[in-house]
Amino acid sequence: MSELRQDPVTGRWVVIATERAKRPESFSQRHEKLVRTKAICPFCYGSEDMTPPEVLAFRPESGKPNTSGWKVRVVPNKFPAFTMGNKSEVSMLGMQENLGIYLRMQGLGVHEVIVNSPDHFKSLALLTEDEVGLVIDAYRSRLLDIKNNPGVEYVLIIVNHGKEAGTSIEHSHSQLFGTPIIPPLITEELNGSRSYFHEKGRCVFCDILSEELGLNERIILESENFLVFSPYAARQPFETWIIPKRHSANFESISSIEKKDFAFVLKNTLLKIYDGLNDSPYNFYLHTSPYKVDTGKFYHWHLEIFPKLSIQAGFEMGSGTMINVAFPEESAKFLRNF
Amino acid sequence: MSELRQDPVTGRWVVIATERAKRPESFSQRHEKLVRTKAICPFCYGSEDMTPPEVLAFRPESGKPNTSGWKVRVVPNKFPAFTMGNKSEVSMLGMQENLGIYLRMQGLGVHEVIVNSPDHFKSLALLTEDEVGLVIDAYRSRLLDIKNNPGVEYVLIIVNHGKEAGTSIEHSHSQLFGTPIIPPLITEELNGSRSYFHEKGRCVFCDILSEELGLNERIILESENFLVFSPYAARQPFETWIIPKRHSANFESISSIEKKDFAFVLKNTLLKIYDGLNDSPYNFYLHTSPYKVDTGKFYHWHLEIFPKLSIQAGFEMGSGTMINVAFPEESAKFLRNF
Repeated sequence: MSELRQDPVTGRWVVIATERAKRPESFSQRHEKLVRTKAICPFCYGSEDMTPPEVLAFRPESGKPNTSGWKVRVVPNKFPAFTMGNKSEVSMLGMQENLGIYLRMQGLGVHEVIVNSPDHFKSLALLTEDEVGLVIDAYRSRLLDIKNNPGVEYVLIIVNHGKEAGTSIEHSHSQLFGTPIIPPLITEELNGSRSYFHEKGRCVFCDILSEELGLNERIILESENFLVFSPYAARQPFETWIIPKRHSANFESISSIEKKDFAFVLKNTLLKIYDGLNDSPYNFYLHTSPYKVDTGKFYHWHLEIFPKLSIQAGFEMGSGTMINVAFPEESAKFLRNF
Repeated sequence: MSELRQDPVTGRWVVIATERAKRPESFSQRHEKLVRTKAICPFCYGSEDMTPPEVLAFRPESGKPNTSGWKVRVVPNKFPAFTMGNKSEVSMLGMQENLGIYLRMQGLGVHEVIVNSPDHFKSLALLTEDEVGLVIDAYRSRLLDIKNNPGVEYVLIIVNHGKEAGTSIEHSHSQLFGTPIIPPLITEELNGSRSYFHEKGRCVFCDILSEELGLNERIILESENFLVFSPYAARQPFETWIIPKRHSANFESISSIEKKDFAFVLKNTLLKIYDGLNDSPYNFYLHTSPYKVDTGKFYHWHLEIFPKLSIQAGFEMGSGTMINVAFPEESAKFLRNF
């Protein structure tokens, strides 16, 4: 008998398919270890003119913009999903046009690439904690800057690691999307956590934190300021969440102590995936509050990591319900030991 | 400047990424043609004892159950995501149990495999229209039967074609999932089409049909009773919908003339994907009304096909918004000509 589990934030059900459940070890052999073959790379030192001019770079030696010597470099995406457009386009901000029975909007917004390190061969798992700290600084700095852009309703920061996870350039990078709408999955989390707060007077994410700390069966890593765990209603094998212990809706409000600790847990969680799952491809994304919605009491920022070890097939696509062939308790136990 | 398009049924926005748009031809070279290598196959003649006993089979020569000679054969899935369980489990039907702050339910329901044909080497695209007609008969027959099962709220019928689309057994088969909840994507479609009906007094799917027939820019194939087209807010390259022209919420109510015509359009649409996209892997699913919800006025059954030609990466996973790198108008034009 399989088991349906409900995510307490969004109310979505997940099927934990016990009849077809696989042992954690069986996932690590699924793919070839990523082999990086450096040809001409737009994200390496010396290729700075292959990208649009940088919008941010950390240069300890204070060199000129768009030259080498940087530690982290942020540039507009060359093939953007969202762009700010020209004046007349910007004047259309948020305007929906009718096309017969259909509605369209312009793709106004921001799409940037954060080059995580000058090292072509190192993913985030292999950088030092200080280097990962700089990437986090870049996330925070761009989030604060883009806040002033009236056309951006939400900023989603993501990493795609490995070809199967959708990367086209192997040099480790993050992407930032400033979107003209609040994405539906964020709306779902906001609605769920708002209702929970109205009903119980507490943050649902804070309650999850206490529950997981109390149960201690899905914890992967714990630090002073963060908990890393497999969620109860994990949608995929080895789905992993990193959540700050302090209630905080906005990632931008991270303190410098928390930032240092976040670099530690992020690096070490990704290292567990690197070691335990044979450098599996993965996606991660940061869920933080929209700029213009007052979510301070009920929302709680976090990061969700999905090793790419299963395929979304017809059932998942047609129903919106995921079938997970691994128990989150076993996924957590497996990663905990790396 | 990319473009955001809204699906008129669900209200979901899709990004049509014009800056990174690809020509239709570029998709067909993505993968190796599926090579079928027949070893021992549980879905071939002579292997009937490798599956659980059949629940339905079409045998023109009227042989014994669970022997060869069938044209289409339906069996319970050997590794089911949902099962009916024993008496005490069935008595838990629909019951949600609390586990601390979490909720769980038993995975009660139905999970069946419909073996589409005895021919190991032919996918639906390569069967005759009559043979596809028998598969459709099996869908209809199972939908009508499972209606009597009090534990099943919804039946989703799907096909996964090719390894990248999630198939583990290459012999062509469909799967039927009888679920104890109405899946969230169905709820979304019901809510959207119900609101549209209350506002305008018309079925949104019927309006889409008229609009597409009038515009004639996203049509792939038209028959007397069906329209095959790329939806305005297509989420993926070559996303294709098949929709009956007659307003009808329940697939089960298909007439025998419509059924014959549906076999023709389904076979020929899949053949266009086979010819035009080099036998691309694909998923399709049938969206029909839940049994116990009165949707007759506003819902409209249809089938959605997704060739597996792109990867859902961090942005799509974290936002719930899809970036489509192909224009549906170009996808439609390309397939129309095959």
